[in-house]
Amino acid sequence: MKAEIISVGTELLLGHTINSDAAHVARELAALGIDLLQVHTVGDNPQRLEKALRESLARSEIIITTGGLGPTEDDLTKETVARVTGAPLEEDADSLARLREYFGTRPLSANQYKQALLPRGSLVFPNTVGTAPGCAVPAGDGRFVVLLPGPPSELLPMLQKSVTPFLLGQSGETIVSFMIKTFGIGEGDAALRIASLTGGANPTAATYASDMEMFVRVTAKARDAAAAHDLAAPVVAQVRSLLGDVVYGVDVAGLETVVVEELLRRGETLATAESCTGGLLSKRITDIAGASEVFGFGFVTYANTAKTQLLGVPEELLTAHGAVSAEVAKAMAQGARARSGATYGLGITGIAGPSGGTKQKPVGLVYVALSDAKDTWLRRLLPQGRYLGRERTRRLASSHALDMLRRRLSGLDVVGKWAV
Amino acid sequence: MKAEIISVGTELLLGHTINSDAAHVARELAALGIDLLQVHTVGDNPQRLEKALRESLARSEIIITTGGLGPTEDDLTKETVARVTGAPLEEDADSLARLREYFGTRPLSANQYKQALLPRGSLVFPNTVGTAPGCAVPAGDGRFVVLLPGPPSELLPMLQKSVTPFLLGQSGETIVSFMIKTFGIGEGDAALRIASLTGGANPTAATYASDMEMFVRVTAKARDAAAAHDLAAPVVAQVRSLLGDVVYGVDVAGLETVVVEELLRRGETLATAESCTGGLLSKRITDIAGASEVFGFGFVTYANTAKTQLLGVPEELLTAHGAVSAEVAKAMAQGARARSGATYGLGITGIAGPSGGTKQKPVGLVYVALSDAKDTWLRRLLPQGRYLGRERTRRLASSHALDMLRRRLSGLDVVGKWAV
Repeated sequence: MKAEIISVGTELLLGHTINSDAAHVARELAALGIDLLQVHTVGDNPQRLEKALRESLARSEIIITTGGLGPTEDDLTKETVARVTGAPLEEDADSLARLREYFGTRPLSANQYKQALLPRGSLVFPNTVGTAPGCAVPAGDGRFVVLLPGPPSELLPMLQKSVTPFLLGQSGETIVSFMIKTFGIGEGDAALRIASLTGGANPTAATYASDMEMFVRVTAKARDAAAAHDLAAPVVAQVRSLLGDVVYGVDVAGLETVVVEELLRRGETLATAESCTGGLLSKRITDIAGASEVFGFGFVTYANTAKTQLLGVPEELLTAHGAVSAEVAKAMAQGARARSGATYGLGITGIAGPSGGTKQKPVGLVYVALSDAKDTWLRRLLPQGRYLGRERTRRLASSHALDMLRRRLSGLDVVGKWAV
Repeated sequence: MKAEIISVGTELLLGHTINSDAAHVARELAALGIDLLQVHTVGDNPQRLEKALRESLARSEIIITTGGLGPTEDDLTKETVARVTGAPLEEDADSLARLREYFGTRPLSANQYKQALLPRGSLVFPNTVGTAPGCAVPAGDGRFVVLLPGPPSELLPMLQKSVTPFLLGQSGETIVSFMIKTFGIGEGDAALRIASLTGGANPTAATYASDMEMFVRVTAKARDAAAAHDLAAPVVAQVRSLLGDVVYGVDVAGLETVVVEELLRRGETLATAESCTGGLLSKRITDIAGASEVFGFGFVTYANTAKTQLLGVPEELLTAHGAVSAEVAKAMAQGARARSGATYGLGITGIAGPSGGTKQKPVGLVYVALSDAKDTWLRRLLPQGRYLGRERTRRLASSHALDMLRRRLSGLDVVGKWAV
């Protein structure tokens, strides 16, 4: 079974919106073992959309459109699909009732009402978040056009609640995919280490870099999930063994998840003291539901007075070494522990840039420290002539902090030299 | 002049990576007045890539590929473009020198060396961040295929430093685009208010929702930037006047930028006290370079003991009203001010979910407070039967905090009822 995605929206062609919808749909198709041939993005342009629809229908059984279902004038996906499939738009009673419920006592405008019109013969997918329902429109010869709303917050629940069950009935084979996640190794190095595994057709193993980390995806295809799993498992084990302890997990959401779950398991706690990351580290930790069990105190000490008052960093230390120094990072980690009573303290201080660097302390220099009841460890992140920019510098610093704690919790070496 | 983007990568078709590259390139093309017809995404599949390249070259003058330039086996974009354009791959001396410099004393592997091969006659775009150079390959009749690396951190600087100057020479007309940003109004409401303006062909005005905010884009096309600017300016003024004080800026990065810049202008400061947002608010504030002038102290008080110890929230208040209450939000905002000496304090407490809600205090309920030397203001965010999820609830709460301060700094009403 082959599928294509057509994303509709001039905002996508102007670059005002990133097409995350296509990624969400693609992931769901992969999980169902449906082969996604291509993704097309067209503007709010019925002619181009019609052409893309006709071409895709000639190649693939399932065409999924995202966007263009809303109340505004340039939302024309339904009208175009109706023309291509020959199914005229008709009022859908359930969708109209939902729409009236959504707006309560306010009367529906003509534009709002339009959202209750769907191509005749559609299977309707209710919108549990917004106003525009989705649907699957038969397109002849067992083909379907599936229409989904553009806002990711509406598309995602519809995908999971309605579209997946619908597609499940249409699919034959199943793909199982494992994501082996690492921190602290480059994509080139990783590719070399697992070179013996990347030539296979089924399972496949591929490396890629994402958000300053490096992942290896192992994918197997079979008639059912169990058989695909059995194909993939030995390759996953080999990848883990070839990459070693830079692997922080398989099919885990991120470093923050691994750290929070391990702390939960051990009944230990963590406090953070952040200067240049300004709360990004605590934000990442509290992204994880249930983090309150292991995280109670975060200190965002952007000013030197905050470092002194909130963390007890001695003023002499700040004067002697400067706020961006190994000594201050260590004192911050220790202060976070002491002031909160947590098992571990993490401290980050650095120059996120783009300005504020000197010859001795260049933009991008960051010190990260981890402290427990006995010891304090340090990493220094020193850019090698390539400043990563403010956002990536901050992100990388917070990842190193999490990685230090991850390695400490796994009994691995924590320190190391890091050229960034 | 017409352009198309072809994004290459199986990880895109499996949904492991979101195609932000296409958005970056699209934005650059729009700024240059180059009409982007479509975006295509294909896997690491030379046959499909070749077909997409040939079809795009038949329609458009500029084809921009993203991805598939790296060192691994499945990076085949250059080989495919070489075949389609008839320009064989040749060693590029400058690129090889850069590559050797990047790897220092380490010897180049065959895969790494491959990155110094480029189609004959290419204009080379150096990679200032990673290892794979980009290039523009002539494709006959004044057509070009522009090859860019996949990692956004490599693509972005190459786009700005090399590709834009190259494309500037190819373009005739110019587009000027203004983004009017609002917080606190729905897309449907906004579309109704500016309905009289959205029918025009040049300039165009279009609404869309992004990241829980609502934007209006006004775009004008003319022979040069000044003429396009003159066309757009009166429509921008009309949109601002029709939407009123929910508009927080035009062509500004975000609420956090507006707030930080206004505080800088006034020489005032801000401190934050966050429970359910866990540092997201301070992270957003410190996303802005130069925030250290206006922000010194952030308190992430996830635990009740942290609220008491760090902010002086009375224990009786926590016992009587619970941590998620109007009273505690106000005490947090006041405590942040008092403990830091800042001009303003912002406090956030709520139930980000997905669990932890009760009938009286449902998941998604958030209290946001703003405090200055005289007053304390409160907003209550109460979900109307639609829980937004943990990430969006946290994001929305932090936006409301910023919006409260934005409105206070502009002399507007701060409080209000917010159904979310």
